[in-house]
Amino acid sequence: MASPAVEEPPPAVLLFRRRLDAAFDAALRQRYRVLDFFASGEPLQDFLAGAAALPDPPRAAVVVGGFAARVDAAFLDAAPSLAFVFSTGAGVDHIDLRECARRGVAVANSGTVYSADVADHAVGMLIDVLRRVSAAERFVRSGLWPAQGEYPLGSKLGGKRVGIIGLGNIGSLIAKRLEAFGCVIYYYSRKQKDPVSYKYFSSVHDLAAESDVLVVACALNKDTRHIVNKDVIEALGKDGIIINIGRGANIDEVELVRALKEGRIAGAGLDVFENEPKVPAELFSMDNVVMTNHVAVFTSESRSDLRDHTIANLEAFFSGKPLLTLVLPW
Amino acid sequence: MASPAVEEPPPAVLLFRRRLDAAFDAALRQRYRVLDFFASGEPLQDFLAGAAALPDPPRAAVVVGGFAARVDAAFLDAAPSLAFVFSTGAGVDHIDLRECARRGVAVANSGTVYSADVADHAVGMLIDVLRRVSAAERFVRSGLWPAQGEYPLGSKLGGKRVGIIGLGNIGSLIAKRLEAFGCVIYYYSRKQKDPVSYKYFSSVHDLAAESDVLVVACALNKDTRHIVNKDVIEALGKDGIIINIGRGANIDEVELVRALKEGRIAGAGLDVFENEPKVPAELFSMDNVVMTNHVAVFTSESRSDLRDHTIANLEAFFSGKPLLTLVLPW
Repeated sequence: MASPAVEEPPPAVLLFRRRLDAAFDAALRQRYRVLDFFASGEPLQDFLAGAAALPDPPRAAVVVGGFAARVDAAFLDAAPSLAFVFSTGAGVDHIDLRECARRGVAVANSGTVYSADVADHAVGMLIDVLRRVSAAERFVRSGLWPAQGEYPLGSKLGGKRVGIIGLGNIGSLIAKRLEAFGCVIYYYSRKQKDPVSYKYFSSVHDLAAESDVLVVACALNKDTRHIVNKDVIEALGKDGIIINIGRGANIDEVELVRALKEGRIAGAGLDVFENEPKVPAELFSMDNVVMTNHVAVFTSESRSDLRDHTIANLEAFFSGKPLLTLVLPW
Repeated sequence: MASPAVEEPPPAVLLFRRRLDAAFDAALRQRYRVLDFFASGEPLQDFLAGAAALPDPPRAAVVVGGFAARVDAAFLDAAPSLAFVFSTGAGVDHIDLRECARRGVAVANSGTVYSADVADHAVGMLIDVLRRVSAAERFVRSGLWPAQGEYPLGSKLGGKRVGIIGLGNIGSLIAKRLEAFGCVIYYYSRKQKDPVSYKYFSSVHDLAAESDVLVVACALNKDTRHIVNKDVIEALGKDGIIINIGRGANIDEVELVRALKEGRIAGAGLDVFENEPKVPAELFSMDNVVMTNHVAVFTSESRSDLRDHTIANLEAFFSGKPLLTLVLPW
């Protein structure tokens, strides 16, 4: 489809997104002059200085979560024309919100585009750990079944007390799904949620002590870094299971690996790690751990939803309309 | 707990159960004289003849599904004292119901003891196939993540049309769980179920043609053998996924493997196979297939529930009370 004829050149947009996604790129380039950091091959400061020197410097940036540059004071100093940062993830731990607020830079994120997919993945990993699906998979593929003796039993979902850390959009969707399996839902969040009937805990430690399963579904910030620490793992106990679809650094990974090695917790399902793509090698030989490569958001449906949602936010920004999924107002 | 003092010796029970389960065995032996076929090491006919020659020949048999002897005319001829056969599985395809009915032998099964666990496993395998959990697991464990380029996208659960073959207890529990993920539920059964709002299909072929996912959740009998055949697989089509937690022979396995090899369906999650414990070796290299070793019922909770349920049925039989989960009345 041809763009409508316009008098002015299309606005410039900074892009920080390493993974290839041809449809996403095409949709952006159809509407904007895209200044692509990873394609430029330039050091960050040079790239930003070049953009700032343009006659029509970029007012918006699209930044992927996780692997890209951090949008901090130095970044914002080097790109003084920026008025809007869009994060293609739900997490905004790569964006210094305080600095953005101070400068009047609006921030929006992927909102709920990924929430159902992340919740599905969390539930899938929990079933997998409890019912030993991936372990059975390895067993069958290795050809061991015909020679088997006894196979270790799994554990039932129904009746399990699942403590969710962070009952936002994703956490709520996880709870809704697990209710259908007969799980009992508890949660921790900064404040008790009002219309929610699940039992609330004001301390993660107490939540862990009362739960069979802990699901980490919170954002990463200074308050939630290592929110699952040695004490929480100990409170969860040797029959406990931890699922993490938040951020790797929500858990003290060294302590988690140690507890798994020493049998002080029963298992874990991990989509995120503290130093991605590095995964502690000790985990590779553990049958009670299920690991995926930060793919909880990875479906073709959510990718096309994200593309539409990103464009919709940029269009709103450039036409002065309200942003769809505001994290910080300008 | 000690048994109550009794005048007569405890009744004899035939046991056909290969897997060790110390608590199950102890519970049986505490109440009955257990004649254990697999422990005897005898050929079946000798074992049955020996039991029949006892002064107090066995009136009840406990028979595991799947791997044990078939309870057919020859079996029943050799054990004329039998009046009750209890199947420790939900499936009774290893019991010739017609012969049992003709001789007035009652048959009961595990009833709904396993249903929730089987439904959970089915949903776990579906998430696993759609979201590539086991494939991602292999990827991470192989250490490939740090060197990765693009990783293949999964597919969203929400909105998927899931066609369930057999809307009994297990099928209904699968449906209930998948509704919480936003799936659309269709079903096939011999007759339309009355209080059910899911769309009914009177033909498996038509169900497959309208579905993204087929879940096999029916019993195995002459009508359901190869109920998923070449035509059904073709109707499901190249984006379709098949989950089987019924019996291996519900699917024409040769055709299924061929369709997977040729990309005529998108993937499969299989807990059961036609010639267990043999699994077609072609499947071992497929990333779009999730295989487990007939463990959908394997949880410690369902095992202890089964123990209680077996004893309760035997106690009812020996005291002349109604059986709890009758398949065939005497």
